[in-house]
Amino acid sequence: MDFFFYPSSVAVFGSFKKGAIAYEILRNIVEGGFGGKIIPVNPKGGTVEVAGRTFEIRGRLDEPVDSAIIAIPAKFVPTLIDEIGPLIKGAVVISAGFSEVGNEELERELVEKARRHGVRIIGPNCAGIFGVHGRFFGSFEVRVRPGGLALISQSGAFGGAALAMGNDEGIGFSAFVSYGNASDLNESDFLEYFADDENTRAIALYIEGVKDGRRFLKALRYASARKPVIILKAGKSASGAKAAASHTGSLAGSYEIYRAAFKQAGAIEVEEMEELFDAAKAFEMHTRAGKRVAVITNSGGPGVLATDKLERLGLEIAELGDETVDELRSFLPSQCSVRNPIDLIADADYERYRKTIEVVCRDQNVDSLLVICVPPIFLPSEEIAKAVIEADCDKPIVVNFMAGELVSGGVKLLENHGIKNFPTPERAARALHWLSLR
Amino acid sequence: MDFFFYPSSVAVFGSFKKGAIAYEILRNIVEGGFGGKIIPVNPKGGTVEVAGRTFEIRGRLDEPVDSAIIAIPAKFVPTLIDEIGPLIKGAVVISAGFSEVGNEELERELVEKARRHGVRIIGPNCAGIFGVHGRFFGSFEVRVRPGGLALISQSGAFGGAALAMGNDEGIGFSAFVSYGNASDLNESDFLEYFADDENTRAIALYIEGVKDGRRFLKALRYASARKPVIILKAGKSASGAKAAASHTGSLAGSYEIYRAAFKQAGAIEVEEMEELFDAAKAFEMHTRAGKRVAVITNSGGPGVLATDKLERLGLEIAELGDETVDELRSFLPSQCSVRNPIDLIADADYERYRKTIEVVCRDQNVDSLLVICVPPIFLPSEEIAKAVIEADCDKPIVVNFMAGELVSGGVKLLENHGIKNFPTPERAARALHWLSLR
Repeated sequence: MDFFFYPSSVAVFGSFKKGAIAYEILRNIVEGGFGGKIIPVNPKGGTVEVAGRTFEIRGRLDEPVDSAIIAIPAKFVPTLIDEIGPLIKGAVVISAGFSEVGNEELERELVEKARRHGVRIIGPNCAGIFGVHGRFFGSFEVRVRPGGLALISQSGAFGGAALAMGNDEGIGFSAFVSYGNASDLNESDFLEYFADDENTRAIALYIEGVKDGRRFLKALRYASARKPVIILKAGKSASGAKAAASHTGSLAGSYEIYRAAFKQAGAIEVEEMEELFDAAKAFEMHTRAGKRVAVITNSGGPGVLATDKLERLGLEIAELGDETVDELRSFLPSQCSVRNPIDLIADADYERYRKTIEVVCRDQNVDSLLVICVPPIFLPSEEIAKAVIEADCDKPIVVNFMAGELVSGGVKLLENHGIKNFPTPERAARALHWLSLR
Repeated sequence: MDFFFYPSSVAVFGSFKKGAIAYEILRNIVEGGFGGKIIPVNPKGGTVEVAGRTFEIRGRLDEPVDSAIIAIPAKFVPTLIDEIGPLIKGAVVISAGFSEVGNEELERELVEKARRHGVRIIGPNCAGIFGVHGRFFGSFEVRVRPGGLALISQSGAFGGAALAMGNDEGIGFSAFVSYGNASDLNESDFLEYFADDENTRAIALYIEGVKDGRRFLKALRYASARKPVIILKAGKSASGAKAAASHTGSLAGSYEIYRAAFKQAGAIEVEEMEELFDAAKAFEMHTRAGKRVAVITNSGGPGVLATDKLERLGLEIAELGDETVDELRSFLPSQCSVRNPIDLIADADYERYRKTIEVVCRDQNVDSLLVICVPPIFLPSEEIAKAVIEADCDKPIVVNFMAGELVSGGVKLLENHGIKNFPTPERAARALHWLSLR
């Protein structure tokens, strides 16, 4: 499927009036810096200007391209596929108006024409695809930073919102695919593809239901064996399942069966949308982490909240070795607590954090570290961020810098060094939980 | 306790060098626009300049004031209280170094001196207080917007972080109190006070443990009968309780007992820090909401996620009346789903949202509305925000506009009209859950 996610040439079909779907996709492809050939196609011809470049709109496609992105009225799509089939390897059909509104026949025709020419189809009724490392933004959704997360979404709108929220959360993406009605390629195909995609470190999957459970379980097992697969399943409740059925036409099926399948395959199931991002952030940074956590904080309360959540999630508050405790006592002020959670108290500075992280990191009873920082009173949060960045520690560190604008300097510095922040102690604890499931 | 939260005069004791605690508190009081008399006191005298105003630093307090804020070394505090006792009604003791580090005797002395003069004490070892509607910011923590939430925090650092995060979340505050070692006034006193404070619409309480359980239960019952009390209890797990004990010296006690007490008193317990804000946002807007929810969305997926979470939390997906369904059908495009969750599909505009909200709001089977908006493709999110604001509906509406910068215009417009946004469908669902507990 490289011709989809790393194409060297692409044709876009639709209206190129400002604001039209095809125009917006063309704009995204051009502005996103795609280096390959871009061919807008519309029977009316003319030209279209995007980001300072003028493209001639061809009346028809007359040369081979890797893939086509199609945003024309549904009823014309099968004929178009038949016409351009010999020239393309794959087509992303954005157009709606197929099986999701009862036009099963039209969708069957589309697939049949595509099969005849050996063309693979994504969609129809989808929001398009991104191949971020190929700088290919073949969707009208907001562009994202390059990184390690491949997002596979059955719902286009969910996918679009998730990309935008991912940007806010500092997540980097390798790819995005909204697969809509899954007339040809579906979640299982994409799981298998991204399992072997070297730019993808983790896969996030939003599904409401799958059509072929056996195939899905196999693909999920394959992918999970290679990298973390994070799943958000919608339609878990009775009403939710009913709503999903009317929305995507897919039978959501019994949630219990899905749940067991996810677990059996080794996938990471999350409960809600926010957790999808938190898990993605965790797995963009680390491959896994053991269960014994050391909490380091400059404020007692948040340390207790982290501890509560860690225990509740089945993690352990690491019992520090005597050597560690003695060493901590040798340089920490007497008011500090040297038992886990380790409280460096309010005036903790760069040195106190860095040395503590290093000493604790060497303890054989510690698998991972959760480092909390509430706004330090006497120095900028950047100092504490620097301590985390520069500490000599090869175990997974998850950070929770609170709160908001008061620590934004430190959070930015961390992010520049690939360390993503979790905004509350509990969300940081949950990140470690997911890491411990791998 | 009005002399604490609505003072007409205040004295600040400590060092007024830039960056010193007393200086930072003075700065906050002056910059916060306090209209009463402000008297900095330090035996060394001199002057201090803050926000363009120059204050004479008095060598000693020589006139009556409502309250004193004290940030001098711990060992001098009891003597100071004895000296100024006749001139003050209350003292906020910021200074640390009392029972929390084993100096029980010093703390006893402090309380004894205060009692002798009928002076009430907040602290010691605390972060101070805000009386936001009296424009009195007697703490070094970040200032906040005026609003309906009174935040009572046993942990100063937690309180400070919560204030900053509250700012980010668009929460308005009536008051803040960090009560530290609770040598005199404690959580129960503040619960009772804010229960009767007319500027306070909801109370948020962070506790690790209480000393007098019977008194606490009585105060909690009293407050909960008057307004929502949201509680975040830290020290729920075995390790968490141990950490809390070493942090505040309070015995956290069995969490099960606390939990039962919260429930019995009618308080709203939340699980984690983020939920404290979400619940506060909900109760700043609404007093309560029934269990039967109508979900209105422009995207199927997020509607399903909201539905899942609502059901899981014990709420009901309202069964719309036949009349409602017919009326919706009369003006909604045929692709829209008129069953709850109501899907207005991607091109929903102002008119479609507003009319739908109004029709659904009139349905007797509906207690409250959850309105979801993913970034609309063809119009700015402000249009949908306007529909929510202008819709004629007197039932509680909770909104989830996704995602981030793409809907920031709409979210801002909503906030200007007192409607706080929940960033994910699940968080919006949880807000309705808390509202249904009242």
